[in-house]
Amino acid sequence: MLAARVLVVNPNASREMTETIRIAAESAGQLTGVDVAVVHPEHGPASIEGHFDEVVSAYWTLDCVLRVVNDFDGVVVACYGAHPAINALREAITLPVMGIMEASVLYALPLGGVFSIVTTSPRWVPMLEEALRTLGVEGRCASVRSTGLAVLDLERLPAEQVRARLAAEACSAIEQDGAEVIILGCAGMAGLQETVAAATGVPVVDPVVAGVVLVGGLARTGARTSKHNLYRPVDPRPGVDVPLGLARIYSPNSA
Amino acid sequence: MLAARVLVVNPNASREMTETIRIAAESAGQLTGVDVAVVHPEHGPASIEGHFDEVVSAYWTLDCVLRVVNDFDGVVVACYGAHPAINALREAITLPVMGIMEASVLYALPLGGVFSIVTTSPRWVPMLEEALRTLGVEGRCASVRSTGLAVLDLERLPAEQVRARLAAEACSAIEQDGAEVIILGCAGMAGLQETVAAATGVPVVDPVVAGVVLVGGLARTGARTSKHNLYRPVDPRPGVDVPLGLARIYSPNSA
Amino acid sequence: MLAARVLVVNPNASREMTETIRIAAESAGQLTGVDVAVVHPEHGPASIEGHFDEVVSAYWTLDCVLRVVNDFDGVVVACYGAHPAINALREAITLPVMGIMEASVLYALPLGGVFSIVTTSPRWVPMLEEALRTLGVEGRCASVRSTGLAVLDLERLPAEQVRARLAAEACSAIEQDGAEVIILGCAGMAGLQETVAAATGVPVVDPVVAGVVLVGGLARTGARTSKHNLYRPVDPRPGVDVPLGLARIYSPNSA
Amino acid sequence: MLAARVLVVNPNASREMTETIRIAAESAGQLTGVDVAVVHPEHGPASIEGHFDEVVSAYWTLDCVLRVVNDFDGVVVACYGAHPAINALREAITLPVMGIMEASVLYALPLGGVFSIVTTSPRWVPMLEEALRTLGVEGRCASVRSTGLAVLDLERLPAEQVRARLAAEACSAIEQDGAEVIILGCAGMAGLQETVAAATGVPVVDPVVAGVVLVGGLARTGARTSKHNLYRPVDPRPGVDVPLGLARIYSPNSA
Amino acid sequence: MLAARVLVVNPNASREMTETIRIAAESAGQLTGVDVAVVHPEHGPASIEGHFDEVVSAYWTLDCVLRVVNDFDGVVVACYGAHPAINALREAITLPVMGIMEASVLYALPLGGVFSIVTTSPRWVPMLEEALRTLGVEGRCASVRSTGLAVLDLERLPAEQVRARLAAEACSAIEQDGAEVIILGCAGMAGLQETVAAATGVPVVDPVVAGVVLVGGLARTGARTSKHNLYRPVDPRPGVDVPLGLARIYSPNSA
Amino acid sequence: MLAARVLVVNPNASREMTETIRIAAESAGQLTGVDVAVVHPEHGPASIEGHFDEVVSAYWTLDCVLRVVNDFDGVVVACYGAHPAINALREAITLPVMGIMEASVLYALPLGGVFSIVTTSPRWVPMLEEALRTLGVEGRCASVRSTGLAVLDLERLPAEQVRARLAAEACSAIEQDGAEVIILGCAGMAGLQETVAAATGVPVVDPVVAGVVLVGGLARTGARTSKHNLYRPVDPRPGVDVPLGLARIYSPNSA
Repeated sequence: MLAARVLVVNPNASREMTETIRIAAESAGQLTGVDVAVVHPEHGPASIEGHFDEVVSAYWTLDCVLRVVNDFDGVVVACYGAHPAINALREAITLPVMGIMEASVLYALPLGGVFSIVTTSPRWVPMLEEALRTLGVEGRCASVRSTGLAVLDLERLPAEQVRARLAAEACSAIEQDGAEVIILGCAGMAGLQETVAAATGVPVVDPVVAGVVLVGGLARTGARTSKHNLYRPVDPRPGVDVPLGLARIYSPNSA
Repeated sequence: MLAARVLVVNPNASREMTETIRIAAESAGQLTGVDVAVVHPEHGPASIEGHFDEVVSAYWTLDCVLRVVNDFDGVVVACYGAHPAINALREAITLPVMGIMEASVLYALPLGGVFSIVTTSPRWVPMLEEALRTLGVEGRCASVRSTGLAVLDLERLPAEQVRARLAAEACSAIEQDGAEVIILGCAGMAGLQETVAAATGVPVVDPVVAGVVLVGGLARTGARTSKHNLYRPVDPRPGVDVPLGLARIYSPNSA
Repeated sequence: MLAARVLVVNPNASREMTETIRIAAESAGQLTGVDVAVVHPEHGPASIEGHFDEVVSAYWTLDCVLRVVNDFDGVVVACYGAHPAINALREAITLPVMGIMEASVLYALPLGGVFSIVTTSPRWVPMLEEALRTLGVEGRCASVRSTGLAVLDLERLPAEQVRARLAAEACSAIEQDGAEVIILGCAGMAGLQETVAAATGVPVVDPVVAGVVLVGGLARTGARTSKHNLYRPVDPRPGVDVPLGLARIYSPNSA
Repeated sequence: MLAARVLVVNPNASREMTETIRIAAESAGQLTGVDVAVVHPEHGPASIEGHFDEVVSAYWTLDCVLRVVNDFDGVVVACYGAHPAINALREAITLPVMGIMEASVLYALPLGGVFSIVTTSPRWVPMLEEALRTLGVEGRCASVRSTGLAVLDLERLPAEQVRARLAAEACSAIEQDGAEVIILGCAGMAGLQETVAAATGVPVVDPVVAGVVLVGGLARTGARTSKHNLYRPVDPRPGVDVPLGLARIYSPNSA
Repeated sequence: MLAARVLVVNPNASREMTETIRIAAESAGQLTGVDVAVVHPEHGPASIEGHFDEVVSAYWTLDCVLRVVNDFDGVVVACYGAHPAINALREAITLPVMGIMEASVLYALPLGGVFSIVTTSPRWVPMLEEALRTLGVEGRCASVRSTGLAVLDLERLPAEQVRARLAAEACSAIEQDGAEVIILGCAGMAGLQETVAAATGVPVVDPVVAGVVLVGGLARTGARTSKHNLYRPVDPRPGVDVPLGLARIYSPNSA
Repeated sequence: MLAARVLVVNPNASREMTETIRIAAESAGQLTGVDVAVVHPEHGPASIEGHFDEVVSAYWTLDCVLRVVNDFDGVVVACYGAHPAINALREAITLPVMGIMEASVLYALPLGGVFSIVTTSPRWVPMLEEALRTLGVEGRCASVRSTGLAVLDLERLPAEQVRARLAAEACSAIEQDGAEVIILGCAGMAGLQETVAAATGVPVVDPVVAGVVLVGGLARTGARTSKHNLYRPVDPRPGVDVPLGLARIYSPNSA
């Protein structure tokens, strides 16, 4: 069997959330024979709560990934949503790149007719619905539901309270919206898959696990990002003043 | 790493096509650490060319799978399309089940903006377009293109002729339809991935490989088919006269 | 006026349900000058409750129809949904063929802006929603609602209880979902049209009646199934071992 | 068998086109046992070539129909498109009302996977595409194609030239767009069904025939327009100064 | 700055509603430097409550506008919905023409993710939903909600009662449907924008204001209706007997 | 008439392109009575050719705008596409904010049935198609067409060559795709509206003009961005190390 090394980047500049992600990612790596490393950028907001945070964090996430990516076979972007770093990385490198939202949806689709996503604050509901349309899979989504929690509440609040809130919203998705599979819609929910599955009786998808499994599988069977049109390579821009990681793309000869 | 045993069933009752599938499936299994077995039903048409063949082959495919499935952790149905055996199996068992069409699409989605499927006879064009709508991913498909070949032509015709026909249609998909990824739309095309990739310069997906990778990944991370609504279990029907494999579902106590 | 003979096949192997269908079909035939015959296969499940039952029943329904269809001008498949026998028959013969779901929707569309379908068990909700998308008319559907009854409950339970359950669900569809027309979403509901219409005050469509009216109308004005692409004829497969009716298609010269 | 009297109104104030329609309508009536009468308004444009003509003709078509409709069991509006008189009549009366566009599409749907409409001038292409979306069946339409002929050209030009133009466009729809069924997209094309069918080898739908068959079938099985929401009755407006037919609706007590 | 003169026509033949519209239109004109004139037809229903009223009012609205339009740079049709006069005018003249529904939606789109429309009677709900699909913006609409009021109730009922009903429905749209912007869905609601905005805390769009702003902006920057396809000019029909305004289009040389 | 000051930001860090934009913006401002200022960030790529450039430029565009926006009544983001700065600004401030793509589409919609966008390099075709789906107006777009030019080619190449290339592609859109209105799909095409209009005979939209007209109109009639859900305000993040403009949002008290 081919070894595969997968880089998981957490765009939220939070050590605690990165640890939560690391545990889930390493567990999935062990089950499927994939080596994982988990990193986060030093700059940018500690949690990504909207479009503004996405822009700031994407700048530093790209820089963080591009400094180290040469040692890996694939990249998982561990922010749940259409984070701008995902498509930017697909232009910058040829390895398979996936966000954990896309991974979780691809993992969930064969397991049931329709899925629901349980996420954090209400603003993510329209943002994730838009992301589903961009992925082109909105027709398979029963609902996106907010728990009303902030991203960092997942670390701050007592674990029991977080689990109860998630399980309650998942049950509503099943009973009221007809969901057959539940997706945990935040990287910070990594590790809660079993609890919610036990509470609901339906399959529950941990997006970090899905990311490691799918990027690992793609990487080991030689998949590469198409450079034909949407993700064709970035044009070099030698003179632009950017941090080291970004400079590897804009000034490939000097960096 | 957890071992995973994946059953690949070829609904086409053709020994030659099953051998072609076996080679691709075993290769993907070796790359990802999955044990595969490949079978085909003894009854039914040697190639599935439309809805009528689907019905006849589905009856015997179900029977064939249900006789042996207890020894496996997941099932791949190796007929490209919305073969009726796929959803029927999802009701009959709890293991992850995927058709190779769904697998190939899930594998292709992260690799580019839009994909095209290159298939055999013209009738499969509307059938696959309908299957894409049922999967809910039609918005990511640039085109479904027919090579004009019958399923069994893939075995009968000189390999060079088959490759040239596939490569030509793939190039048209890229140039005229904007395809960024090409999917080989027939189980009998297993093994031709490299040739077509070389001819086109874009990623090419072998659906049998995708099936083994994805079902293997799901199986090893404990995924199960949701029994909540669409795929809830089959009601026992003790008195119905059916072959042995089907009887294990309709008459679970006696079989 | 041209005579038209329409074959109605009930894919559910249930004598009682076939009688219910016969009464509705003959009544519609008398109003529109169409001769009807109603049959059901000897093999297969007595009621079709999901995908698995569809596959088994489709095999025997095709066999049943193909033994006798030469004496008719059109075929109605009296299982509510996208039963696989419908498209298979469209390949096998040139007469007009319609399932009662498609017929009921075509009948309902000119009568109001949006319709709702009231069906039996909850699993049929996603199955019928998918069938509506395949028919391409999902935008005109206000809702698909389950009564929670099994198919055979329609025969087993007291008539008054069945009617009350149907009427209650129809009223919810009108008040909560905006339905302007109600469709009875099961062949076994044939004959209940007047009761539900009286209870709701909106037009109610009996799908068996719709099937006889529309197939009769098509047959008498010379309509034929297009053989151009999706429904082109089945290729002969002389050696395949199948029952007599199927053999008329696979081995046309010997059968 | 129940008798049914169907009123066919041609909104184009053209005696010649009305005669063409009458022949097709009476032929369909004889095949299906329906009595038909064909009328046209005395005022308004002789041919309807766009939105402006639709408004003027709708005013006088309503007046024309409402003067005589009490003697009939159903109404066919013989202008191909979403003519405003159709929905207005559905509010004004309870009999089944259908435009010939809707009728032709409902007739065509069961006969093949996708249909194309061959119409007159290029402006009708976007108008009919919009009408298909309103009907909710745009997903089943392969293409709408213009012959470049004006509505009245169908009467003025030599018959052979009209037929050749129609057949050529129908063949393009089949070969380039994948159409499996052809619909003649203008009331003035009534009677050309057989010629185009012979030239193309696929089913061809005459929209006037479809209108008579479907409205006749609905009328004889007791179908009524739903008055629940979209087509609820018109409020009386006693003082408004309108012609006699319109006054029967606005001033029901005095007219 | 260029002067712009905008004609606002109220298709409802009601002096009171026209006064309400005039106040809102003149206020928007003053803010943006646009001269407005507001008119209504002498004939037709005092309020437009459905399709039948649309046809009658469209005939007289066209006549009314075409008598005076030469003195203006753009036209606003102040009936909320897909009133048939809008597209007819786009054929008849080259100035920019907009209905207030389209204007209100274009104005609302940049202000939030999804909007809701609060309208009068329940029948307008499906009519406006259909109009949104024709405009192609249905995906941005959270809901269309009826207040249960008739058009003329807006003038007849105590102002406080009207405001309370509107505010209550707007709040439901925000809380239950996720609306981020509210659109007042009736010309007769002009002037109530501030009250509803105060009650809801989200942006509220007055459709008459939107119409004046947008048609004014288009007119001053030289925008013209495309005559290429959908709105190509009306063919002259010299002999047709129509009122003076319509005759300017049908008989351009004599009128 | 109310004065309105509109800030136009060019996210491309190119002085030449900013001058081109300034001329178009000031001209539109003069026609409609709006004061405009045009700026560009000092950092970031000189032209935005894909997702990677979007991320880098968005970071510096936000910073650039937020340093000066307090002096304005509305903001136009002059990069054609779904530039990430647009939604981020909608969260950061309450003034109306529009990208020039959205503005151009809203301006074009009332002028014809369907529009086409003529843009620069082929990669923008799928990016703009995705942006149209996010705007929810994809159904009104006939096509997005690439001229094959890079963004900076618009400045570098002889003006005549640029015009010829644009006019040729616009004509193809009209003849082959049915476009009725043409939109110039790049800020660098500002000023070419008249040339292309003369070459095609249909309305042509300059997106910078559209941006100034629409943001000006919204600003003068008091429109504000909804803060209810999708664009609710950014949470302060006092400790995050960001440039001055961004710090005004993340550390509102200290900046």
